[in-house]
Amino acid sequence: MSKKSAQELVSQILEGNTRGIAKAISLAENGLAIQSKEELIDSLYSHCGNATIWGITGPSGVGKSTLLDKLLEHLRRDNHKVAVIVVDPSSPFSGGALLGDRLRMQRYATDEQVFIRSMASRGHPGGIAGATSDAVKIFDAAGYDTIIIETIGIGQSEVEIVKLADVVLLILVPGLGDEIQALKAGMMEIGDIFVINKSDLNGADRLQSELQYVLNLRGEDKSGSEYPLVMTCATNNQGINELYDRTNHYLTTLTQSGILSRKHRKRLEYEVRAIATAKIREKIDFNSRLETQLDGWINEIWLKKASPYKLINQKINGLIKEMEHR
Amino acid sequence: MSKKSAQELVSQILEGNTRGIAKAISLAENGLAIQSKEELIDSLYSHCGNATIWGITGPSGVGKSTLLDKLLEHLRRDNHKVAVIVVDPSSPFSGGALLGDRLRMQRYATDEQVFIRSMASRGHPGGIAGATSDAVKIFDAAGYDTIIIETIGIGQSEVEIVKLADVVLLILVPGLGDEIQALKAGMMEIGDIFVINKSDLNGADRLQSELQYVLNLRGEDKSGSEYPLVMTCATNNQGINELYDRTNHYLTTLTQSGILSRKHRKRLEYEVRAIATAKIREKIDFNSRLETQLDGWINEIWLKKASPYKLINQKINGLIKEMEHR
Repeated sequence: MSKKSAQELVSQILEGNTRGIAKAISLAENGLAIQSKEELIDSLYSHCGNATIWGITGPSGVGKSTLLDKLLEHLRRDNHKVAVIVVDPSSPFSGGALLGDRLRMQRYATDEQVFIRSMASRGHPGGIAGATSDAVKIFDAAGYDTIIIETIGIGQSEVEIVKLADVVLLILVPGLGDEIQALKAGMMEIGDIFVINKSDLNGADRLQSELQYVLNLRGEDKSGSEYPLVMTCATNNQGINELYDRTNHYLTTLTQSGILSRKHRKRLEYEVRAIATAKIREKIDFNSRLETQLDGWINEIWLKKASPYKLINQKINGLIKEMEHR
Repeated sequence: MSKKSAQELVSQILEGNTRGIAKAISLAENGLAIQSKEELIDSLYSHCGNATIWGITGPSGVGKSTLLDKLLEHLRRDNHKVAVIVVDPSSPFSGGALLGDRLRMQRYATDEQVFIRSMASRGHPGGIAGATSDAVKIFDAAGYDTIIIETIGIGQSEVEIVKLADVVLLILVPGLGDEIQALKAGMMEIGDIFVINKSDLNGADRLQSELQYVLNLRGEDKSGSEYPLVMTCATNNQGINELYDRTNHYLTTLTQSGILSRKHRKRLEYEVRAIATAKIREKIDFNSRLETQLDGWINEIWLKKASPYKLINQKINGLIKEMEHR
């Protein structure tokens, strides 16, 4: 990208131009134009930090999209400008379910204040978490005050992604069976607010007791309207009000107590470390470089054209010098 | 070391001066003077490649030293100039047994054609194998035509050390019990000639059949005087003639077939790779460097004094530049 078109793109994003935003996110997803992407994010960075980030996660089939749809209604009623990033690290293309969601969300197609974007492809350099983080910055700089990251499935990538959020809603349904056991073992830690959706199904009460038990273990001492467990039935709008209010209340408390700021700082730490580590790993891909050269080194030493230590020292310094210019 | 004294040391070694040799080996063992050591080895390198290298290995208590003592007699009778390197990577000091050996070998104390040196300390940079390899080069350049490396114990270090040898004598005795099982599992591969010492002990026949079985598995098709299994009883000089002849025969065949040259090439490969890998690991100790700096980076980005990618790229290049000058 030329310097001029890069500056133009930055201006478009800061004005909230949707075509510019879409282009920028594609750039963030695209591993081929790393330098352009980095310059773009760097240019936007000083304009970031104003959005509130929601994470919505849980196993597939729990009704995340319907719930999200209902929450969007509330957010729009309160006049929020909302960006939704739907992340599916496991599938290279948007599958059927995702397409259905897209259609369902089409009612926001003409709403300039709602931007829905899926990041559904694998193989982002630096991981899907890195690309999502860049997308969040683009939306943030573009003036979206609420950014919702929806992840599909439960796994390491999802955990990394929800670390980007200020508040994480973990959605469950009765009858998940073994899945809930696995969740309990570790993933439970990633939810700030637990949602039992499809609460009209059999087993909702049992799931509720189980989650209350987990919350007790976690030492949650909140009660009443602060208790981080909400029963919903998204399809007939039950419990959505309560969930929306409780999420906002949670965010307000977080902000006022100063915890949110510490959380942001932690997130930045995590992000800088991830970028630095990925870059180091990529730059210092010594093993493969060594393998391509080693035969030549050995030959020179074998033929006594060179002394071993002198040659090895020279060559390794050469490799390091090369790295520097990569 | 000054340039002048380094050149003097090289001259002393090439003349076969024993005090110079001893000084050089101490230098090779000493991690503090890496540069001097490397320059020394580099200076000697073009004079190397004339010595035949024997490896003698096996569990402790099998009588390696007595056997070595007897083999030395034969080597001296054939007018070889012999260097013996006794390696004990497991002990930081020469222990009792080693001291005993030293006393026993004192009969060579006045023989200018025999040089016995133990390398008994841990913690050589680049591993004991690296230091041993340097010592071999020093003796080689000093005109020792036969260099014997004796290792004590059986382990990964021993395997690496015997890779330096042209021929490896693996010494066993009857009644090793479990030890022989472990040997069979993997270490058997390191022996070129198997020696059953103390063959007057009970169980010698059984050990012989076991070893024959292993040799069959290995596809050894040599027979008669070429069969790589010799029964000895070093204390009363039994089988030593045979072992000595068979070892020399093995070496002659190896030389004539061109296998020895390929073996030397492989050894060089192994050595260059080991030095290069150790140097890279040492130079690129990124993790600890990153940890000391990361907090500072995060702070600058947090306070928006810098853009994330620009700062990270700059800092990483800085780290790489530092490495180059180490």
